[in-house]
Amino acid sequence: MRAAIFRGGDIVVDTIPEPKPAQGQVLVKTLACGICGSDLHAAKHARRMSEISKRIPGRIPMDLTRDVVMGHEFCCEVIDYGPGTEKKIKPGTRVCAMPVMLEADGPKGMGYSNTYVGGYAEQMLLAAPLLLEVPNGLATEHAALTEPLAVGVHAVEKGALKGDETPLVVGCGPVGLAVIAALRLKGIRPIVAADFSPKRRELAVKMGADIVIDPAKEDPYAKLAPGKRAALFECVGVPGLIQQIMEKAPRDARIVVVGVCMEADTIEPMFGIVKELSLQFVLGYTPEEFARSLRLLAEGQVDAPSLITAKVGLDGVKGAFAELGNPERHTKILVEPWR
Amino acid sequence: MRAAIFRGGDIVVDTIPEPKPAQGQVLVKTLACGICGSDLHAAKHARRMSEISKRIPGRIPMDLTRDVVMGHEFCCEVIDYGPGTEKKIKPGTRVCAMPVMLEADGPKGMGYSNTYVGGYAEQMLLAAPLLLEVPNGLATEHAALTEPLAVGVHAVEKGALKGDETPLVVGCGPVGLAVIAALRLKGIRPIVAADFSPKRRELAVKMGADIVIDPAKEDPYAKLAPGKRAALFECVGVPGLIQQIMEKAPRDARIVVVGVCMEADTIEPMFGIVKELSLQFVLGYTPEEFARSLRLLAEGQVDAPSLITAKVGLDGVKGAFAELGNPERHTKILVEPWR
Repeated sequence: MRAAIFRGGDIVVDTIPEPKPAQGQVLVKTLACGICGSDLHAAKHARRMSEISKRIPGRIPMDLTRDVVMGHEFCCEVIDYGPGTEKKIKPGTRVCAMPVMLEADGPKGMGYSNTYVGGYAEQMLLAAPLLLEVPNGLATEHAALTEPLAVGVHAVEKGALKGDETPLVVGCGPVGLAVIAALRLKGIRPIVAADFSPKRRELAVKMGADIVIDPAKEDPYAKLAPGKRAALFECVGVPGLIQQIMEKAPRDARIVVVGVCMEADTIEPMFGIVKELSLQFVLGYTPEEFARSLRLLAEGQVDAPSLITAKVGLDGVKGAFAELGNPERHTKILVEPWR
Repeated sequence: MRAAIFRGGDIVVDTIPEPKPAQGQVLVKTLACGICGSDLHAAKHARRMSEISKRIPGRIPMDLTRDVVMGHEFCCEVIDYGPGTEKKIKPGTRVCAMPVMLEADGPKGMGYSNTYVGGYAEQMLLAAPLLLEVPNGLATEHAALTEPLAVGVHAVEKGALKGDETPLVVGCGPVGLAVIAALRLKGIRPIVAADFSPKRRELAVKMGADIVIDPAKEDPYAKLAPGKRAALFECVGVPGLIQQIMEKAPRDARIVVVGVCMEADTIEPMFGIVKELSLQFVLGYTPEEFARSLRLLAEGQVDAPSLITAKVGLDGVKGAFAELGNPERHTKILVEPWR
């Protein structure tokens, strides 16, 4: 089968063996798979990401001398099941699933793995117990947004807001937009959102932001509702952002770090200390949050169509990685490996 | 009156004018005042502390071209009240108070102020509404430990532990010891405590630690009770400690930053992200926590005598600052300005 492969620091299209489902696994056809900002980060900081994984018990670092097929935001179609596996959802059905394979010694991630190919391939393997049927009427391309939406839903849940906070979302890329959608769905308002890009600010409004700010022109922190505890979502993921938020944060603020900064970063703890700030780092989502996100999309509660700005085949993945650097042109690019 | 003054980067003993209480203020004789690690930090990083204060709205930076009298852990004796001030506690009575002066536009700190002298002086001014009478039977020197104990009590409160966490206290200086005492009083056990110093580990046991570890020989994180959420207290306050704890922390750990690191610090956010860590920076205490700490000392619930390792007069302050670098010799040195 064909796949867009991360190989030797570059993305190349090549043919690789078709995966064979083992017991508990499902072979699926990849219908659509979104390109995540983390994929761009991982391509740029692959060596560093691999080094860090080596230092965290339980993480399996990518072996960069071997092929990696990325892609963890997918909607697929069931082809066949591994031997001895209950065929709960019949072949031909569209499914979503969390991008993890269940192994005897615990779940293993896919998308940054040498073992399991991700969604930038014509076929992939999923864990049978994790399959979720895509509800009728939900377009495949919108179902593929389940994973990024779940990131926002989880960030708001893990942020453990009480509901009376005044939220500010710093950065309105796909992660920030998902956080805005999740805040709106929970009714935590008014939502202030900040981004330098006019296009991203426009999308922030579509996702439910009440006040959008160009930080080059105005101070978004001045828009926080007075008398409420601030909940500040870091959705950029580059060095310096955490410190910038710590400097600007009002007293007793809750900072939820959703952006994935893979480099070392500098903070001045005194800002945290003097204002008694709290930081919550977040990652991923629970199975319940993932399923809820799919349901929210099916119910039309999130303006999914606005988020998808292009679709490419496998030959377009490399170009799409480059294109995604421009926030005016693109938000979410979907890969359709069958194209 | 005489005072040990932070002047031109050095500590000198000199005569300064006696303070005159205004309305709402009380003139007191300083009976005893503990030397805090923050005072050592402030002396070492005075310029940086002042620079940071300028960048935080509402903070009044120390003017280092003018005198500062430090000292914020005091027990005093009431001398006289300002005009038009209700004399609730009669002259001659021993009192403790939070080291803040109440002004029309909000509280102002003392101890790092050009306006209000701290406890390294024969006399000082306190805010009349904040006076707490020292209960009969509580020694003056132990009453002077109210403030540092309150720091530990507050750290545990602000840490918002549910009571079923497994705590590790990293660093058993006065701050770490206060945290251990506060954890023990709340019954959050077993308490693991780590310090390179044998003397400090011995004190940790006296304060209530269940397991004490020399991190040069053993991994304190291996002693955390399994199956419980870890609560990790950073009580050192030097660069690198937050990152070290983030690297070693188990998944979903709560890190409470009590140590006051006044320098820039480097973290690798990926460790926080991958393990979904939370950090809570803490500072100070509430009036209720301060009053509770005095009560706990009066009830003999904390082994106060073990903590005090020396008493000096004003002439001994400079030497004491130098001596406190040796954890084997000293924990808390009290200044008795009347000596």
